[in-house]
Amino acid sequence: MTKALLPTLAAGLAGACALPLAPVLAAGGGEAAQGGEAAGHGLDPFVLAGLALIFVVAKVGGELFERMNQPAVLGELIAGMCVGALALVGVEGVETLRTHAVIGALAEIGVIILLFEVGLESNLAEMLEVGWSALLVATAGVVAPFFLGWGISAYFLPEEGTLGHVFIGATLCATSVGITARVLRDLGRLQTRESRIILGAAVIDDVLGLLILAVVAGAIRASAAGGALALSDVGLIALKSVAFLVGAVLVGHFVVPHLFRGVGRFRSRGVLLTVSLAFCFFLAWVAAEVGLAPIVGAFAAGLVLDEAHFENFNRRGERDLEDLIAPVGAVLVPVFFVQMGLRVDLSAFARWELLGLAAALTVAAIIGKQVCSLAVVERGVNRLAVGLGMIPRGEVGLIFAGIGASLTLPNAQGVAEPVIGPAVFGAVVIMVIVTTLVTPPALKWGLQRTTPTPEPGQDEAVAELGEDAARRTEL
Amino acid sequence: MTKALLPTLAAGLAGACALPLAPVLAAGGGEAAQGGEAAGHGLDPFVLAGLALIFVVAKVGGELFERMNQPAVLGELIAGMCVGALALVGVEGVETLRTHAVIGALAEIGVIILLFEVGLESNLAEMLEVGWSALLVATAGVVAPFFLGWGISAYFLPEEGTLGHVFIGATLCATSVGITARVLRDLGRLQTRESRIILGAAVIDDVLGLLILAVVAGAIRASAAGGALALSDVGLIALKSVAFLVGAVLVGHFVVPHLFRGVGRFRSRGVLLTVSLAFCFFLAWVAAEVGLAPIVGAFAAGLVLDEAHFENFNRRGERDLEDLIAPVGAVLVPVFFVQMGLRVDLSAFARWELLGLAAALTVAAIIGKQVCSLAVVERGVNRLAVGLGMIPRGEVGLIFAGIGASLTLPNAQGVAEPVIGPAVFGAVVIMVIVTTLVTPPALKWGLQRTTPTPEPGQDEAVAELGEDAARRTEL
Repeated sequence: MTKALLPTLAAGLAGACALPLAPVLAAGGGEAAQGGEAAGHGLDPFVLAGLALIFVVAKVGGELFERMNQPAVLGELIAGMCVGALALVGVEGVETLRTHAVIGALAEIGVIILLFEVGLESNLAEMLEVGWSALLVATAGVVAPFFLGWGISAYFLPEEGTLGHVFIGATLCATSVGITARVLRDLGRLQTRESRIILGAAVIDDVLGLLILAVVAGAIRASAAGGALALSDVGLIALKSVAFLVGAVLVGHFVVPHLFRGVGRFRSRGVLLTVSLAFCFFLAWVAAEVGLAPIVGAFAAGLVLDEAHFENFNRRGERDLEDLIAPVGAVLVPVFFVQMGLRVDLSAFARWELLGLAAALTVAAIIGKQVCSLAVVERGVNRLAVGLGMIPRGEVGLIFAGIGASLTLPNAQGVAEPVIGPAVFGAVVIMVIVTTLVTPPALKWGLQRTTPTPEPGQDEAVAELGEDAARRTEL
Repeated sequence: MTKALLPTLAAGLAGACALPLAPVLAAGGGEAAQGGEAAGHGLDPFVLAGLALIFVVAKVGGELFERMNQPAVLGELIAGMCVGALALVGVEGVETLRTHAVIGALAEIGVIILLFEVGLESNLAEMLEVGWSALLVATAGVVAPFFLGWGISAYFLPEEGTLGHVFIGATLCATSVGITARVLRDLGRLQTRESRIILGAAVIDDVLGLLILAVVAGAIRASAAGGALALSDVGLIALKSVAFLVGAVLVGHFVVPHLFRGVGRFRSRGVLLTVSLAFCFFLAWVAAEVGLAPIVGAFAAGLVLDEAHFENFNRRGERDLEDLIAPVGAVLVPVFFVQMGLRVDLSAFARWELLGLAAALTVAAIIGKQVCSLAVVERGVNRLAVGLGMIPRGEVGLIFAGIGASLTLPNAQGVAEPVIGPAVFGAVVIMVIVTTLVTPPALKWGLQRTTPTPEPGQDEAVAELGEDAARRTEL
C-alpha cells in the first residue's frame, strides 16, 4: 500500500517492480515476520526503494541548483519539498518516506557525519583563537531574537501570559548549524575566520539554548505546580554541558594520540575510518546524554582529531581520513537535507490566519541574528556573512516549539492550555522553513560581497574573495 | 536503563557519560518526543553508542583473527558472540543492541553493499560462462541436503508427519552467501572460477529455495485447510524470479549505459557513487518485492554495472566506483557480521536434549553441500573449495524455520501444532551457527590446498595458488 509511489516514479526502469510481495512470504503472517526479524531480516524493503529515490532526487536537485549557481543543498531541500508535495495530491508512500524511523535515523547519521567532516577540516587552536568573538556572537544572537520574539508575542497574542511570551522568544534563539556548515563547505570556505566564528558560536548557542529551555520550561512547570523554579537543576545542566566541552578537549589532548598510536598498529582494512567514526559516534552519544545536540559532539570529535594522530597510517600509504570519510558523507549527508525538505509541511502556508504572526516571527528571527555581526571583535572579518550564517533555525526551533506544545499553563479562566497552541506552532514551522531556505543563497551572496569599507589587513582576504568568485564563474 | 552497558564498557574514556538524559528534555514527555521526531530528531542516541561499540569490537576481533591467519569475518562474528554473551551474565543494553531496528537495518544495508561490491568485482559474461556448473552445483546442493534432512527428521522425530519432515529438509537447502563472499574477498579470490561458480550457484539456490518454500508451505496450508496445493501460485513465483533475473540482465544491457552516460554529465560531488548505490538499492528492493533476498538484487546490480559505463567519470579524474564504495562498505559490512554474532543464541547449546538432532542436522547440512563438488562440470576447478563455500546457511535457514514455526498441522490427536516446534527451531539455530562459524577457516584451508591430482590445464592455477599462499605467509 505504502509502496505505491515508488513504482509510479520508477515505472520506466523496471515493469516487474510493481508486483506485490511474494504471497508465500506475506502469508507467513505475524509470527513469521517476527521470526524473520529476529533472524536479521529486520530491513523493510521500503527503506531500499526510499533511499534510492532520495539519492536520485538529491543529485538531480543539487545539480539543477549548482547550474543556477546556487548551493547544492538548496536543491536537495527543494527536491525533498517537491517529493513531499506529492502527498498533497494523494500520492501514497510519501508519508511513510517522511516518517520512516530507519530513513530518519540515516538522515540524522548523515548530519552527524557532516559536522564530523566539518570538525576535521577545522582545528581546535584556530577555533579557540576566535573564542571571544564566537562567545559574543552567540550571546548577541540569543539575546536579540529572544526579546524580539517576546515583543511580537506580546503584540500578536495579548491574551497569552508572560511565560508564554518568553517561550515564544526562546524558540527564536537557537541556531541550526547544519545548513550553514554545508553551504560553507560547498563553497570551500570552511578555513575562513567567518566560518570558525559561526561554528564556534553555534556550539555555544546550543549550550545557551539548552539553558534557556531549562529555565523557561522549569519556570512554567513550577508555576503550573504552584512552586518555584529550582535553580540547582539549571546549574546542573550548565555544568554538564561545560563539562562535556572541556572533557572533549581533554580527551582530544590526552587520550586520542595514544588511542590512534595503538590503532595504527592494526593491519586490517578500514581500521582508521572505522575507529574515527566510532569516536565520532561516541562523542555524539555523550553529547546527547548531557542534553546537547548529537552534532555538537560530532563536531567536537572532528575538532580534536588531527592529521598528526594518523602518522602511522599515512606512512603505510593509506588514504587520508578526510578522503576516506568523503564517500560516506556523500551518500548520507544528502539524505538529511532531502528528508528536511520532505518534512516541510507546505499546508502551513495555506493557513491565512497564521501568516501575519509567521511573517513577524520570521523577520524577527532574521533581523535578530543580524545583531551578531555587531558582536564580532576581530578585525577584517566579513561581519555580514557571520550574521547571515546564524539565520537558520532548522529542527532546533521545532523541538523548542514541540516542548512548548507539551507544557500547559492555566489561562484567564483557570483552564490548562498548552503554552504553544496549534496556531503558534504553525507559525513557528513557517519561520523554520523560511529561515532554512533563505540561508544558502543569502550566505553565498554575503560571502561574495566585499565589505564596503575594507579595514586594514583585510585587503588580502578581499583579493582572495575576488579570485574565488572569478574561479567559480569560470567553472 | 538499556544504556547501562555502554558506559560500563567505556567508562575509562569519559566519566561524564553516565549522566542521564538531561531532565529538561526527558520531561518534555510524549508529545514533545513526537514533536521532536517529526522535526527530524528520530535518532535514538543508543544507536550512536551501539554503532561505536560495534565498530570497535569488529576491528579488535578482526585484527586478532587476522593475526592468527584466519579471515577477519570470523573475528567479527566471534566478537559479536562475546558481546552477546554479556547478556547471559546480566549486562543490560545487549538485548537492545541485538534487536534495535535501526542497527538491524544498517547491518542489512551492510550485507547489501557487500554483495554489490562483490558483484562489481565480478562480470556478467564470466558468470554466464560458468552457468552450467553453477546450475548443477545449486541443484545438487539443494537436492542432497533436502533428502538428508528429511531422513534425519524421520529418524529423530517419528511422530511428525511427512510434511513436517519435508519442511525440515527444506530448511537445509538454502545457501547464505554473505560469509563465503566475504571470505573470498578477504583472500583476494573473487576473480577465480571457484568464486564465480559459488556466487552463481548461490543466486540460483535462492530461487530454488523460494520455490521449495512456496511448494512446501503451500502444501501445508492447503492440507490444513483440507484443500490441494495450487500449482499456479508456485508457477507465478518461479516466473517472477526468472523475470527478475532476466530483467536485471536486460536493464544492464539496454538501460544502464544510457543512464550513466546521462549522469556522467552531472558535475556535482559524489554523483557516481550515489547513483550507483541508488541503482543497487533499487534492484535489491525489486528482488525483495518478487520474494528473493535483497542481496540477490544487489549482486545483480553490481554484476551489470561495468567500468565501461563510467568513462565520463574516469576521464574527469574521478576515483573508481570500487574505490569510492570501499569506505562505505568498510563501515557497514562489519556491522552485519557483528550483529550476526550478537544474535547467536548461545543458550541453545545448553539444551542437551537438542544436541543429538542439532548435530545430525549440522552434519547433514555440511555433507549435503559437499555433493556440490561432484556437480562441477568445468575442469581445473578446486571442487573442494566449491563444496566448502556452499556450507553456510546463515539467516536463510532461520527464516525458513521461522515460517515453519508459524504454520500449523493437526497432530495425531487432531490438535493443530506448529510444523517446526521450539525444539526443532533450537536445533536449526545450532546448525546455522555451526555452519556459519565453520566456513571461514574451512574455505581458507580448502582454497590453499592444492587438488590431489592436478588435471591438465590446471598447472597455472595451482602455481598461482602456491604463490599466493607464499605471499600471504610473508605478510
